[in-house]
Amino acid sequence: MRTIDWVDDAIEIIDQTALPGEVRVLRLTTVAELVAAIRSLAVRGAPALGVAGAFGVALAARQFAGDERARADAVQLVEHARPTAVNLARGARRAAALLAAGPPAVLAEACAVRDEEIAASAAMAALGADLMVELCGARPRLLTHCNTGGLAAVTGGTALGVVTELHRRGALAGVIASETRPLLQGARLTAWELREAGIDFRVAVDSAGPFLLARGEADAVILGADRICANGDVINKVGSYAHALGARRAGLPFVVVAPESTVDLDTPDGAAVEIEDRGAAEVTDYAAAVNPAFDVTPHDLVTAIVTDRRVIRLDRGERP
Amino acid sequence: MRTIDWVDDAIEIIDQTALPGEVRVLRLTTVAELVAAIRSLAVRGAPALGVAGAFGVALAARQFAGDERARADAVQLVEHARPTAVNLARGARRAAALLAAGPPAVLAEACAVRDEEIAASAAMAALGADLMVELCGARPRLLTHCNTGGLAAVTGGTALGVVTELHRRGALAGVIASETRPLLQGARLTAWELREAGIDFRVAVDSAGPFLLARGEADAVILGADRICANGDVINKVGSYAHALGARRAGLPFVVVAPESTVDLDTPDGAAVEIEDRGAAEVTDYAAAVNPAFDVTPHDLVTAIVTDRRVIRLDRGERP
Repeated sequence: MRTIDWVDDAIEIIDQTALPGEVRVLRLTTVAELVAAIRSLAVRGAPALGVAGAFGVALAARQFAGDERARADAVQLVEHARPTAVNLARGARRAAALLAAGPPAVLAEACAVRDEEIAASAAMAALGADLMVELCGARPRLLTHCNTGGLAAVTGGTALGVVTELHRRGALAGVIASETRPLLQGARLTAWELREAGIDFRVAVDSAGPFLLARGEADAVILGADRICANGDVINKVGSYAHALGARRAGLPFVVVAPESTVDLDTPDGAAVEIEDRGAAEVTDYAAAVNPAFDVTPHDLVTAIVTDRRVIRLDRGERP
Repeated sequence: MRTIDWVDDAIEIIDQTALPGEVRVLRLTTVAELVAAIRSLAVRGAPALGVAGAFGVALAARQFAGDERARADAVQLVEHARPTAVNLARGARRAAALLAAGPPAVLAEACAVRDEEIAASAAMAALGADLMVELCGARPRLLTHCNTGGLAAVTGGTALGVVTELHRRGALAGVIASETRPLLQGARLTAWELREAGIDFRVAVDSAGPFLLARGEADAVILGADRICANGDVINKVGSYAHALGARRAGLPFVVVAPESTVDLDTPDGAAVEIEDRGAAEVTDYAAAVNPAFDVTPHDLVTAIVTDRRVIRLDRGERP
């Protein structure tokens, strides 16, 4: 089952706001529908957003075939639907480069983006599983944050793909999934994926993670990324940085798994990234709030970054 | 308005599970009712639990006047209703020491515990406000975790009492209150108290705290304690440790405010404290969970502890 795909002239996504209660498929036939789905996090996760960006431009190419200005506006709308993950803009731009060749060429490019993310997930799972055993020993117990499974990609996933691969190898001794406030991608989505995969796990509130590491309840932290900067700084779901601090204090590896499409050498460091604030309503209906959806983990706290092509050992001075 | 008091032969508490929606007063006339209220967190916060422990023994002294064994069992039940905060057992034992002198003597001692906590709050507010200005400059912006206001004490509070005192002095430039999962003592209780006091604030998810400190949105972290160990390790609401790591990395003060009744020289360090796990149901109805209600902040991450009698500068090598 693919999180996002092109089916019968429309984008189909699994509505991630309805999980784990319901597996609902949404058909998106206009750019406006797609942008709303991106903003509401019905589709989310950096690799999935890359595919959404590319398919969004494919929609725009058909919807505004006769009106170049409207089409350009629609492409802009897709590209900027959310600001932090580099994949969305990158996927959109990649498909948009084919606009002059006509809608079929744009769609073919978007499908290529999708297929590359599927292949990337498989490659990361293998490389990442090898690395975790190298870093932690034969049967690691892993703590993961947010959702980085098939739902965040097309199939497979990034960090959770590594977890699943270790389980498949019989080499996984435990998983703690942080709940990931405010929208509970861990308690809802990661929990659903782990249950579907038949993997035992425990959920923890986000703020417990560093303490659980100090208490020796996991051997490493493994999570994804929304953007990897040229200096190795990692932008990911808010709470990643706190887990990195906890891993460092506990002397444990902190491993980031993300496809090459998330590596952005045009962004020098975390300070250059716009961190989306998603407003108070997600956090509380009672008061004002500050709600950064992402945070910056400085590169010196990152042990390694696993992509579909390589393992970047930041702990050994390597850089993206 | 007192969070907990003895009124017309019963304990009255503000039901903290009903806030901020409703200010509901519960009358507790039996030990069983009190223990249930403690376990459900209808009454919570280390200083308030100390008073609850003492009043609980006063209830037991009357309820089981003719049956010494039943009375002893009831006292045990109160003392061990929750394991982590030292105040509960300490308050109960202090009142229990008067059992031989009869119910009026027990009640008088329990009222003395209450009155001392009220006085302690006032003393901490003054000492703590002075310290924060000394550490942060004239108008600090503070990040606080969990609820440490009047609701956690009898009136006034510990860390939030300092925040309120700074506001009263016109010396408070901002407050971030962490929501405090899983039971949202920050988003519900601290938010309610700050609003009642007319203090502007923003709520943040717990995992955002360390990033907000890195981004320069607060000048210090200030919070309470459930037990302070002889070596200076601080046991407090889960998430405190993550905030301490964030403060350290950002080079900011991490200040703990708690009455002397929370200092436990009989506990050598954090490893000796039983950390209550409150079970999965508080966290998720969908999966297994690990749910430590508290964590341990090692003393080397603590800048200072403010009690009602002194400021212990751990950053200068002082110890409780």
